[in-house]
Amino acid sequence: MGQSVLPDQKIYFREGLRGMSTFDTVGAHVLADFWGCQFEKLDDAELLMNSLRQAASNARMTILGEKSFKFTPQGFTGLLLLSESHISIHTYPERGYAAIDVYTCGGGMTQKAIDFLKEVLQPTHIHEMQVRRGQPDVSFKVYAS
Amino acid sequence: MGQSVLPDQKIYFREGLRGMSTFDTVGAHVLADFWGCQFEKLDDAELLMNSLRQAASNARMTILGEKSFKFTPQGFTGLLLLSESHISIHTYPERGYAAIDVYTCGGGMTQKAIDFLKEVLQPTHIHEMQVRRGQPDVSFKVYAS
Repeated sequence: MGQSVLPDQKIYFREGLRGMSTFDTVGAHVLADFWGCQFEKLDDAELLMNSLRQAASNARMTILGEKSFKFTPQGFTGLLLLSESHISIHTYPERGYAAIDVYTCGGGMTQKAIDFLKEVLQPTHIHEMQVRRGQPDVSFKVYAS
Repeated sequence: MGQSVLPDQKIYFREGLRGMSTFDTVGAHVLADFWGCQFEKLDDAELLMNSLRQAASNARMTILGEKSFKFTPQGFTGLLLLSESHISIHTYPERGYAAIDVYTCGGGMTQKAIDFLKEVLQPTHIHEMQVRRGQPDVSFKVYAS
């Protein structure tokens, strides 16, 4: 954990990753609060980071780096730096709570990433919303679920 | 860049950082889109990371790690892993656009961090909203500005 999949100094082209000739600023940002998750899962750094990586992979996102931190006595934060933007998780095992963000610019299958994390963490209830952002002349649009 | 301020393996107590005896899941998550920023600023990795760090410091947040990536030919992503949650920036210099998130659980002066980044990046217009999250029985509350 805490290692880049690709070194920071490597030259990386956004458009090449996305198969596009122009950069697209329009983004889908999903905020999801998972409640009722098992303590053990929310305190398992390896499970959580592997799950973030798998969620990104399933959603066809490209991981360019990651950072994580295990709190004492419990709790975890994991961040994935993506070509498409980022995924984050902050867990509070003692509350059965995980705060998750999946943010993609220029496409990306955000819902697929969220769905995979639901499968792994098995929340009993969820608060979730999607924010459409990245358009200069259009305010944020919020889609609650 | 890309280095932890504190090593991941160091034992770190959330409550000690926050001066609280219980963990607070209630979070303020600010999403801010800055438009009309200078290309040079949005493509300056050092300026951007220093600004994120200063924004966190001004808002009395504790940085536990960071990760960044400079895209070619332009563009930058920076992530700060905080005791309080995270700060992120994704820039598109060719569009004058920066997508910023400041997310704090258990307190933290989110607006102070955003205000500092406004001072540095001098956007001509902004879309911004705050989402109140982290309450099991309360849906997300959105405050647009």
